[in-house]
Amino acid sequence: MSFRKMLEDAWAGQNSLVCVGLDTDLKKIPVHLLSAERPIFEFNKAIVDATAEMVCAFKPQIAYYAARAAEDQLLATISYIHDKYPGIPVILDAKRGDIGATAELYAQEAFIRYGADAVTVNPYLGFDSVEPFLRYEDKGVVLLCRTSNPGAKDFQDLRVGTQTLYQHIAMTVSEKWNSRGNAMLVVGATYPKELAEVREIAPDVPFLVPGVGAQGGDVEAAVSNGKDRAGTGMVINSSRGIIYASSGKDFAEAARCEAMKLRDEINRFR
Amino acid sequence: MSFRKMLEDAWAGQNSLVCVGLDTDLKKIPVHLLSAERPIFEFNKAIVDATAEMVCAFKPQIAYYAARAAEDQLLATISYIHDKYPGIPVILDAKRGDIGATAELYAQEAFIRYGADAVTVNPYLGFDSVEPFLRYEDKGVVLLCRTSNPGAKDFQDLRVGTQTLYQHIAMTVSEKWNSRGNAMLVVGATYPKELAEVREIAPDVPFLVPGVGAQGGDVEAAVSNGKDRAGTGMVINSSRGIIYASSGKDFAEAARCEAMKLRDEINRFR
Repeated sequence: MSFRKMLEDAWAGQNSLVCVGLDTDLKKIPVHLLSAERPIFEFNKAIVDATAEMVCAFKPQIAYYAARAAEDQLLATISYIHDKYPGIPVILDAKRGDIGATAELYAQEAFIRYGADAVTVNPYLGFDSVEPFLRYEDKGVVLLCRTSNPGAKDFQDLRVGTQTLYQHIAMTVSEKWNSRGNAMLVVGATYPKELAEVREIAPDVPFLVPGVGAQGGDVEAAVSNGKDRAGTGMVINSSRGIIYASSGKDFAEAARCEAMKLRDEINRFR
Repeated sequence: MSFRKMLEDAWAGQNSLVCVGLDTDLKKIPVHLLSAERPIFEFNKAIVDATAEMVCAFKPQIAYYAARAAEDQLLATISYIHDKYPGIPVILDAKRGDIGATAELYAQEAFIRYGADAVTVNPYLGFDSVEPFLRYEDKGVVLLCRTSNPGAKDFQDLRVGTQTLYQHIAMTVSEKWNSRGNAMLVVGATYPKELAEVREIAPDVPFLVPGVGAQGGDVEAAVSNGKDRAGTGMVINSSRGIIYASSGKDFAEAARCEAMKLRDEINRFR
């Protein structure tokens, strides 16, 4: 099944646009888990089980695993989600990007080694750096467009002709790179005006939207400005706001509550 | 010792601007190595020993290791170089880039987990995505500027005001981000005109120059246009052209010959 279909089924079947970000940091997980053999995986498993009912996707951020040599726990997490919740796509947040031959290896890393359903990719190196990912027709390729951080202004907002750079990238992805229907765009919730602009440029491209929760993005503005004609088209990620809702033994239950709150808040504005 | 000093010492002590790229692909290494327990590491060790005398740096490309779950062999390679050739810096080619908290974890991956002396970083997300790397004052941060691939034209060449995007990035790095003297720029050898422009904008920033050898960049044009006032300022990378010079048992010797040829050709034009 294609990533796009999987995502549409998850939006409808789960009645949710929420994505839980598995940015699992050993310094932040409950101390009682630290004695486990695979503490990151144990934490993720509990979070996944507690929140799966509320989400349309999970998004592990690979840096958290790579910094700790915990690739095995990343793989175990993705396999666990696929085995237990086969309808829920996993977006590997890796922001890879390199020239053709190397890009193909990064695509293998994401799609074959880890079995992710989609991966985030940095478009700065241009089409031949993205094409090796897009060729995996059943996988999603999530291109950075307008990110949620303050530094997004440094280059993404520069004017190139009549557009900003991020608008130009949105147009390029929507009109050229998305010929297989498997592209997405990252547009941060912290900049709702930009979300509306990108939605106008790319009416049919799904967005991955970071920046609600800990980063402070306004849910109503993000949903109103970012949703597509069907009232979906968004994968709205929250990581820290959900997974670290409690640092005690009730962490999974607290995460479930936060995921439910976010799902319901989003659904009010669709 | 700072990365900059280490690099300057290597340029002078080795009388070389050559960097050997360790893009080690199991499909391309000599078949007699495939029965080894760690074939990638065995190949790298032989290449490193054969070429160390000719180079100012080594540059493993992490995608080759990540696609094969061979992080242990990447670490073994870097440790081997540091132990046996302590004066030769290792640039980890990873092209990472993410928002602040995650960028710090990618910096830990490169500098702490792998002990690399420098890492390549994608600047698209702006200053707060790069600063966590730059804070490691003794490490090098190699920012993508004008890459060597055809798709570089898609966004890097767009005009922003009176400059192209890559010129603007070069200026930003040279004038603002390099306050600790630990930044570098990636400028491909395949576009010598662009090399000259970036050298004018950033006279004191060292360049990492991919694209000679297999990618076809002209050595004379690259060196003439990219060198700094001291006749150095460049780390000129060749990967496939050196490490796969022979697919037989003489692969290391053949790599040594190619590295020597490239070193001498470069030195003729300095």
